[in-house]
Amino acid sequence: MEFVTALVFIFIACACGIVWAVFNWMAVHKVEIHHKHEGLTELLQGAEQEKIETLLEIGEHIQDGAQAFLREEYTDCSVFLAIMAVLLIFVSPWSSLAFILGAATSMLCGYLGMAIATAANFRTAFSAITSLANAFQMAYRGGCVMGFLLVSISLSILTLIIIIYNAVIVKSDENNFEDLVTMFDYVAAYGLGGSTFALFGRVGGGIYTKAADVGADLVGKVEKNLPEDSPKNPATIADNVGDNVGDIAGMGADLFGSFAESTCAALVVSSTQLRVLQDDKYVIEIGQLMYPLMVSAFGIGICILVSAYAVYISKVNHINKIESTLKFQLLLSTVALSPIIIGIAYWCLPADFVMVAADNSIQLAELKPWHAFLCSLLGLWSGLLIGYFTEYMTSHSYTPVREVAQSCGTGAATNIIYGLALGYLSTIVPIVAIAITALLSMKMLSFYGVALAALGMLSNLTIGLAIDAYGPISDNAGGIAEMSELGENVRESTDALDAAGNTTAAIGKGFAIGSAALVSLSLYGGYLTRIQTYKVGDQFPYAEGAKIDDPIIFAMLLIGAMLPYAFSAFTMKSVGKAALQMVEEVRRQLHEHPGIYAGTEEPDFRACIAISTKASLKEMIPPGLLVIVTPTAVGLFFGPYAVAGLLPGALVSGVQMAISASNTGGAWDNAKKYIEAGFYRNEAGEVKKKGSDEHKAAVIGDTVGDPLKDTSGPSLNILIKLMAILSLVLAGAFCRTGWLYKSE
Amino acid sequence: MEFVTALVFIFIACACGIVWAVFNWMAVHKVEIHHKHEGLTELLQGAEQEKIETLLEIGEHIQDGAQAFLREEYTDCSVFLAIMAVLLIFVSPWSSLAFILGAATSMLCGYLGMAIATAANFRTAFSAITSLANAFQMAYRGGCVMGFLLVSISLSILTLIIIIYNAVIVKSDENNFEDLVTMFDYVAAYGLGGSTFALFGRVGGGIYTKAADVGADLVGKVEKNLPEDSPKNPATIADNVGDNVGDIAGMGADLFGSFAESTCAALVVSSTQLRVLQDDKYVIEIGQLMYPLMVSAFGIGICILVSAYAVYISKVNHINKIESTLKFQLLLSTVALSPIIIGIAYWCLPADFVMVAADNSIQLAELKPWHAFLCSLLGLWSGLLIGYFTEYMTSHSYTPVREVAQSCGTGAATNIIYGLALGYLSTIVPIVAIAITALLSMKMLSFYGVALAALGMLSNLTIGLAIDAYGPISDNAGGIAEMSELGENVRESTDALDAAGNTTAAIGKGFAIGSAALVSLSLYGGYLTRIQTYKVGDQFPYAEGAKIDDPIIFAMLLIGAMLPYAFSAFTMKSVGKAALQMVEEVRRQLHEHPGIYAGTEEPDFRACIAISTKASLKEMIPPGLLVIVTPTAVGLFFGPYAVAGLLPGALVSGVQMAISASNTGGAWDNAKKYIEAGFYRNEAGEVKKKGSDEHKAAVIGDTVGDPLKDTSGPSLNILIKLMAILSLVLAGAFCRTGWLYKSE
Repeated sequence: MEFVTALVFIFIACACGIVWAVFNWMAVHKVEIHHKHEGLTELLQGAEQEKIETLLEIGEHIQDGAQAFLREEYTDCSVFLAIMAVLLIFVSPWSSLAFILGAATSMLCGYLGMAIATAANFRTAFSAITSLANAFQMAYRGGCVMGFLLVSISLSILTLIIIIYNAVIVKSDENNFEDLVTMFDYVAAYGLGGSTFALFGRVGGGIYTKAADVGADLVGKVEKNLPEDSPKNPATIADNVGDNVGDIAGMGADLFGSFAESTCAALVVSSTQLRVLQDDKYVIEIGQLMYPLMVSAFGIGICILVSAYAVYISKVNHINKIESTLKFQLLLSTVALSPIIIGIAYWCLPADFVMVAADNSIQLAELKPWHAFLCSLLGLWSGLLIGYFTEYMTSHSYTPVREVAQSCGTGAATNIIYGLALGYLSTIVPIVAIAITALLSMKMLSFYGVALAALGMLSNLTIGLAIDAYGPISDNAGGIAEMSELGENVRESTDALDAAGNTTAAIGKGFAIGSAALVSLSLYGGYLTRIQTYKVGDQFPYAEGAKIDDPIIFAMLLIGAMLPYAFSAFTMKSVGKAALQMVEEVRRQLHEHPGIYAGTEEPDFRACIAISTKASLKEMIPPGLLVIVTPTAVGLFFGPYAVAGLLPGALVSGVQMAISASNTGGAWDNAKKYIEAGFYRNEAGEVKKKGSDEHKAAVIGDTVGDPLKDTSGPSLNILIKLMAILSLVLAGAFCRTGWLYKSE
Repeated sequence: MEFVTALVFIFIACACGIVWAVFNWMAVHKVEIHHKHEGLTELLQGAEQEKIETLLEIGEHIQDGAQAFLREEYTDCSVFLAIMAVLLIFVSPWSSLAFILGAATSMLCGYLGMAIATAANFRTAFSAITSLANAFQMAYRGGCVMGFLLVSISLSILTLIIIIYNAVIVKSDENNFEDLVTMFDYVAAYGLGGSTFALFGRVGGGIYTKAADVGADLVGKVEKNLPEDSPKNPATIADNVGDNVGDIAGMGADLFGSFAESTCAALVVSSTQLRVLQDDKYVIEIGQLMYPLMVSAFGIGICILVSAYAVYISKVNHINKIESTLKFQLLLSTVALSPIIIGIAYWCLPADFVMVAADNSIQLAELKPWHAFLCSLLGLWSGLLIGYFTEYMTSHSYTPVREVAQSCGTGAATNIIYGLALGYLSTIVPIVAIAITALLSMKMLSFYGVALAALGMLSNLTIGLAIDAYGPISDNAGGIAEMSELGENVRESTDALDAAGNTTAAIGKGFAIGSAALVSLSLYGGYLTRIQTYKVGDQFPYAEGAKIDDPIIFAMLLIGAMLPYAFSAFTMKSVGKAALQMVEEVRRQLHEHPGIYAGTEEPDFRACIAISTKASLKEMIPPGLLVIVTPTAVGLFFGPYAVAGLLPGALVSGVQMAISASNTGGAWDNAKKYIEAGFYRNEAGEVKKKGSDEHKAAVIGDTVGDPLKDTSGPSLNILIKLMAILSLVLAGAFCRTGWLYKSE
């Protein structure tokens, strides 16, 4: 395929994606809120003016809080990112530029996501007054804006970078392998920039949201019997802000990172190893490397159609239809993308091509396009499998969560034991799926295959993001409905939307983890090919590969496997500490202003927001540095092979922890919801709901699960990806240093 | 060194060890219990006759229960072991024989440990009536019997096997490398036998003890306010029996496994790779391979002196002296063994020797005895470091546990969050210590060095076992004192003994995990050398080593890292399920026989014992099969390189989980004890003890920690060791099969 043809299709797809996002954005903003909305007066059953005003006010509070936090977070991170950008100039100014663009794109995506989510949340609550279908539309369209904007913007910026770098760096000679390789090395810093910011976004946002959430939960338990989302609880607004900065902005940055990194990994590996035999010579043209980007471009197109189906055709007019509609989106996009991926492979890739060794010395395999699309399909369908299995393990419609809920009958301890066991058990299916995908795609196309599998899994990312962002929007809508004391029927609708959102959030996390594992593996492959390309003379005798029985590699494998534990320890304790501060502040307010509990005085939301902001900005530094400093220091002091052990160690250990943490937390959350919904019966057959001992035990589980599922777990994705891409970018530096240790 | 000289020293050391154990056994049994003991009448403050009789009766109950369980467990396991022994005949009848001997030794050690512990526990309680020093003597001497018997018996049986196999298998030719290699291959099945039984012992015992413990704790909470160890609680005896079958018999089998396996690993690797250059030819004699056994033999000798110091010289006449005396034992034995290890190296090893590649093709390194002793010393001192660090993380004398205790002020959820974070954090120091030890010893002596490091860590195993077994004996003594309602002062003494026992138990677990990691790594090395020895022609192109970027190796690395999670899920849920059954039974008894609670009727202990027995025997099967079937199936279907990925995956992931699970559990237990001892103060400065909300939160943490620290955590040691030694023994079979997957 010609480079230009590919560019045309990519930009058309991105343009369509952006148009569709803007269209949905406008649809969301079209909902004008005033109390004279048709028929509203009856629906609100009196006192409507005041309630609507409260709703608007709370929406504004959340928006302000989220914006204020992001502003501070961005300011703090910018300093750090600027330092890194300056340091990267030593690697190459081009890398530094790509890094800045990646970080900026990541920030932009996070900001836009937050903006649309905070615009959609109160409108969702408002729409729930008229009908469930309207509310669903609002939340889902909000999600779509986020999904399509993010993927389209990041794909188009990445493509622009490639165009410019190609024009400037690659000479027009025929055998321009080395220029291409160098150029994609620089481009890879785009992924690094995105992921570095994502780390702080995820960790900072995760600590913010869970400090507020755990703090708010504890207060209800410890002090007064305040229900969740009570307007009397000063931490409630912070909790809702947290959903936007953690689950929306943080997650957006995270998945942008996955997308950018897997594309970069595919480009790095393929420029080094993918060749076409022409006139007895190995050649490659940049256009022949565009298959991964084309998959993403067509992914946008297909997903527009799929989401349009949800928006225009499927009618969510009953509570039971919510979850199935969202799940169907995933299935539909997977099915629709399968033939497209096959078609693009035959269209974009050369009819015959080969993989050569990293130093171009020997030919490793002769290949056809079907090898490539098989890898992508493996990724795409394992993604679906992981998503559906995650839903099975975390939704209270199935046995696993019900067992956990049932174990609350003997108290919090058994709930915790059963929940932990569930999380551990839930690693089996995703890990086997990832292992099979990795095995087959490496076997066929080496690490290029793994990168294609990762991109396959992410090809319906827009839909994944849309249904994922739908969750926190609905969660917020529920909170706002509660706080503005809208009627019982409104809250029933928003609760149902929220419950489905819990499940889709778990699915989204499953996707994020699965793709992170594959992305990290493909980046690791890129790293290995790089240290082979850089090898000078006999300095690196292990250039054939990373041997587990090499002392430094094994030692670092062990230390790498420890990093996710250290990282989780930091983040969990940060949440614990920040939550305790929150409790103290709430305690102080309730004590000093008895009017708050009586309902005559408004609590000071801002003080709580300030605590979450300050704590998260301070506490995100140690785990952030751990992830960035460790591989850098190990590489500089112990050389490239030490890092070749560190990365797979962190990968194989981190992915297990991430899956089990996310699913344990999700299961506890839904076990609590199961009891709240009145499904739980004790041995005597009595229904136990809110306020019962069983519910209290379930709340303890949910509170423990909060930092696991929303702080540690998802941050581990970034840990394994960021360490890998950082090492890839610094591979050359590691090869020249290794001050303390030389591999014999 | 001549083979015969080595044998003489080894048998003398074993004989001394056995004599010292028997001597202590007699000292324990010398305590005759009757109520007319000198001055006892005043001490017991009346009603003494009845109390002493209760004490004797309870002691008998526990003894009977433990014996009955072991009988059933041994019967069930024998069937399984017999099947494995028959299957091993296909590998070699010699392997099968060594396997049977290993399993039998493991059973014997477990049984003897149980016998002495159940004889020492009630005598400890009885001795506490007269003085703390006497009670300490009793518990510590009981531990010594266990420690010295186990190491002496297993070392002497292993040596006997070597003598016989050497006589029968090794031809008297000069270049008998191959015979030696084959022979030690067969000998390795001794370790396999020991470890296979240890798996069932640890898992079965762990489920037994924690089902009873968790069940007993839950009942107090759920039903009536029964204090711990109340004689009215029908599950109490089962709980005490559990300490003996889990913490004594199970742990003994575990550490026997470590000892046997590391010795076998050292022998397998050294027979393959250690050579002396004589007349331009590489030769080796069996006597030159005896260094590892000599280290263990001299270890026994030194430890006799060290433990005699504790028995005769140090006087534990105050509560504060208990923990320091035990810790000092560890330090003393480490310091005393250091010069000995250096001396033996120069005495036993050739003055110059070389390591050659597994196929004897090339020489890898020229070596001196100092390389060897350095490896052993690294192991010995990292063991001490790990032990002391574990104490720091789990004793309530230091900040980490106090922080966890303090977090109980905001409820169980923060307690759990802080506890989990503590466990995760506690992996850092042990992992770095193990990684450095592995790095340096591999760098110097390849996997032989790792085996020597493991043996160095285990060279003061007798002391380690003694202070470890001391713990459950004291725990039992406390329980018995409580149940027979001996005076307050008696219980104060036994409580103090027990608290120190908690810490030493954590130290013991740290040792067990650290040594398991090194043992497993050295066995992995043995496995790799084996698959290189077995390689036929070009069938195994990766014979240079296991490459992480080989598709099957990476895929299996990922799956291996998942196994500890699956295993923990099985075992934790087993404990949960069995505990729920226990709760039901206790509930039933208390409901149907109100006299129990009133104190007029004796509860039916036997029913509870039967539940724990049945549950543990049934529930140990799935995790047991997981560990045995997985590597076997992977090897048979996917070939030797698949297993070469599976083992390090399980190792690097399992060791982290084991450390964090043990330490989290230990910390929660001691946080609870911290509150019970009246050290906890809330924000207002009030002391909160038993019965407060803070204490209830701490109890929830302790209950969650029970299966983590006594079932899942320690069983993971065996998982990583057993998988490795099983693969080592089956390496030949894997090389001939690999039905589903061929490495290219």
